[in-house]
Amino acid sequence: MKTLGYYNGKIGEIEEIQVPMNDRACFFGDGVYDATITANHIIFALDDHINRFFSSASLVDIPLPFTKPELGDLLKTLVKKVETPDLFVYWQATRGTASRAHAFPEDAKTNIWAMIRPIVMPDLEKKLQFITTEDTRYFHCNIKTINLLPNVLASEKAKKAGCYEAIFHRGDRVTECTRSNIHILKDGTLHTAPADNLILPGIARSHLIQHCKLLNIPVIEKAFTLDQMMNADEVIMTSSSTFCASADKIDEKPVGGKAEEILKKLRTSLLNEFKEATKI
Amino acid sequence: MKTLGYYNGKIGEIEEIQVPMNDRACFFGDGVYDATITANHIIFALDDHINRFFSSASLVDIPLPFTKPELGDLLKTLVKKVETPDLFVYWQATRGTASRAHAFPEDAKTNIWAMIRPIVMPDLEKKLQFITTEDTRYFHCNIKTINLLPNVLASEKAKKAGCYEAIFHRGDRVTECTRSNIHILKDGTLHTAPADNLILPGIARSHLIQHCKLLNIPVIEKAFTLDQMMNADEVIMTSSSTFCASADKIDEKPVGGKAEEILKKLRTSLLNEFKEATKI
Repeated sequence: MKTLGYYNGKIGEIEEIQVPMNDRACFFGDGVYDATITANHIIFALDDHINRFFSSASLVDIPLPFTKPELGDLLKTLVKKVETPDLFVYWQATRGTASRAHAFPEDAKTNIWAMIRPIVMPDLEKKLQFITTEDTRYFHCNIKTINLLPNVLASEKAKKAGCYEAIFHRGDRVTECTRSNIHILKDGTLHTAPADNLILPGIARSHLIQHCKLLNIPVIEKAFTLDQMMNADEVIMTSSSTFCASADKIDEKPVGGKAEEILKKLRTSLLNEFKEATKI
Repeated sequence: MKTLGYYNGKIGEIEEIQVPMNDRACFFGDGVYDATITANHIIFALDDHINRFFSSASLVDIPLPFTKPELGDLLKTLVKKVETPDLFVYWQATRGTASRAHAFPEDAKTNIWAMIRPIVMPDLEKKLQFITTEDTRYFHCNIKTINLLPNVLASEKAKKAGCYEAIFHRGDRVTECTRSNIHILKDGTLHTAPADNLILPGIARSHLIQHCKLLNIPVIEKAFTLDQMMNADEVIMTSSSTFCASADKIDEKPVGGKAEEILKKLRTSLLNEFKEATKI
């Protein structure tokens, strides 16, 4: 197969898969998801992503019909059905299919979705441009839900400005981006927002922190401001498909570029982990 | 037909309608909706709802493939296909069908949904019970989007507490409920939250304000507090399917019941408008 769509056991190319109008994704965005990538058909950081997925589901009271190992086995089976070895792997759970009413439906059976398609690994050395935008999202940003409309609007705003991503801030406090986390390096220390309800606890973020520790780079998990970011030595973006990229412009102003060596060490360390984990 | 589901021209019972997995409702909740009721197959306050729907779509940059009169004609045609004369009428627009990526897809064609089913008019004289809960939603509450997960969670909390609805507050400020607006009567005056980005500009709310003016009841559109609500003469809930109901308990504490005459006048006035507009 070129791509794979999955819905409660039904399998086909993504474009072929249909779901019931009454799936609670359709009227409420009542679902959670997670996503990662493969190389050589091997799913990277699978346990981390499955743990976070179970946590998201639990935080919104969506019961899951499988154990963590069972989900892992399902995903491993699905990725093998797609020809390309380097893939984007996405899965979600929605709160059943039922006549529209806000409160949880009685006896709803959780729906399980997956979507797998080829991915081209980005060039991590390419400097990225960002915009900043007020964070108008809800206060459940720690949960990976499909209520993503503010992220969609901010992404589009970034795209229209010719930028890769939008950096959210609540007042002066930087939170994260629309689909990635953001961090700064200053005087040899990594500053990253704390994993509270205003940011997603990124898997790539936690790997970044681990690798900082391996490399004796101090880490401060504390909110930083727009000013601190604009004056940082480097501004680093992490996501599960772009492990560790950096910014050269934010809101058209030059940023970073003052700690290239630390950045390179971190990126090499993270990429080596990925290569090691996905080698055949 | 017993019920009607509609998706881009496809029509069937709601349970039969399937939509593509790649509809942007499914991964982003990237859509807006509106809803009202009929009596005798006549749609109540249709122009108000269509105006708000066009406003919601415009606020999130979803282009609509029809004019307001064309949408009105479509909905009028659809409700006639369902046998029952008293109906819940729901419609939504989503930002097309495309491979998952946050920013707007190029050349996406807006998808049009509708869902129509029988409704039983509630007994408006029945006093309702509420809970209060912190409003953790985003800052786009003026737009009727399908990003409704916080509303779902609060509705379920109310249901578990044996209550009809949950009243949201941001700190001390009362905003609205999960699927309705909330107002208070005090010393003969109606107090209602201003139509800013923290509440939906309810159609039933605007009719309530109009009828207050008709009945010489002063209206103050200004945020009120939890304390003011608990000490109000009446606490009134409005929605498009429950025009004007009132509370007798909030968080298990007795409220209201001190301005029954004004309440009755308002309710009668609103119901008369509905009966007049939907008579054959």
